[in-house]
Amino acid sequence: MVQYIKMRLDASFAALSDATRRGVLEQLGRTDASITELAEKFHMTLTGMKKHIGILEQAGLVTTKKVGRVRTCKLGLRGLEEEAAWIERHRRLWDARFDDLDKVVEELQRKEKADERKKRE
Amino acid sequence: MVQYIKMRLDASFAALSDATRRGVLEQLGRTDASITELAEKFHMTLTGMKKHIGILEQAGLVTTKKVGRVRTCKLGLRGLEEEAAWIERHRRLWDARFDDLDKVVEELQRKEKADERKKRE
Repeated sequence: MVQYIKMRLDASFAALSDATRRGVLEQLGRTDASITELAEKFHMTLTGMKKHIGILEQAGLVTTKKVGRVRTCKLGLRGLEEEAAWIERHRRLWDARFDDLDKVVEELQRKEKADERKKRE
Repeated sequence: MVQYIKMRLDASFAALSDATRRGVLEQLGRTDASITELAEKFHMTLTGMKKHIGILEQAGLVTTKKVGRVRTCKLGLRGLEEEAAWIERHRRLWDARFDDLDKVVEELQRKEKADERKKRE
């Protein structure tokens, strides 16, 4: 199970690591679209767009359906919950680390001021 | 500016697309560590870990500092805010799309029931 989630996170973060693919997800968030429409919108060749859609599809973020000669793309059933949860957990750790750092800096500043006072006295 | 954020998202999502690199971030969220310590912890060669750290460093998620012969890694100053914001925006679009879909399904079910009633009458 853990291994499965790891592989899913690998695939979805890799899918998100390209501005065109993120743009496609935003577009499909507004309305379904054919691969041809998406290729035009993002000024790409059909082959290039098919490759991007394949990566999004493998990550479960997009599903496609061919009716006649047109392949229509829509958002997949996965909604990036696991990705959001991972990032949220990391942000909490990160905040805690930098809160600690803030405390260290404050402590150093307090000591510095105390030393200055001592020198003046 | 927009282009810059795009490139930063490309780099950080790519950095997050590997389970070892996510593990390193979680580890550094708890405490700073040398590359040697990280390599041991994740059962990797030094070369392999250096490569992962390089990718995390380029994405601004990790910083390193060499003192003597030891290179220590710590969390970078970036805290994944932009990544969290992108995912959150996408999740909202996604929810809206699937709410719409729910409404369509409900509408179809209502019509179906009405048709059945008519047939029975």
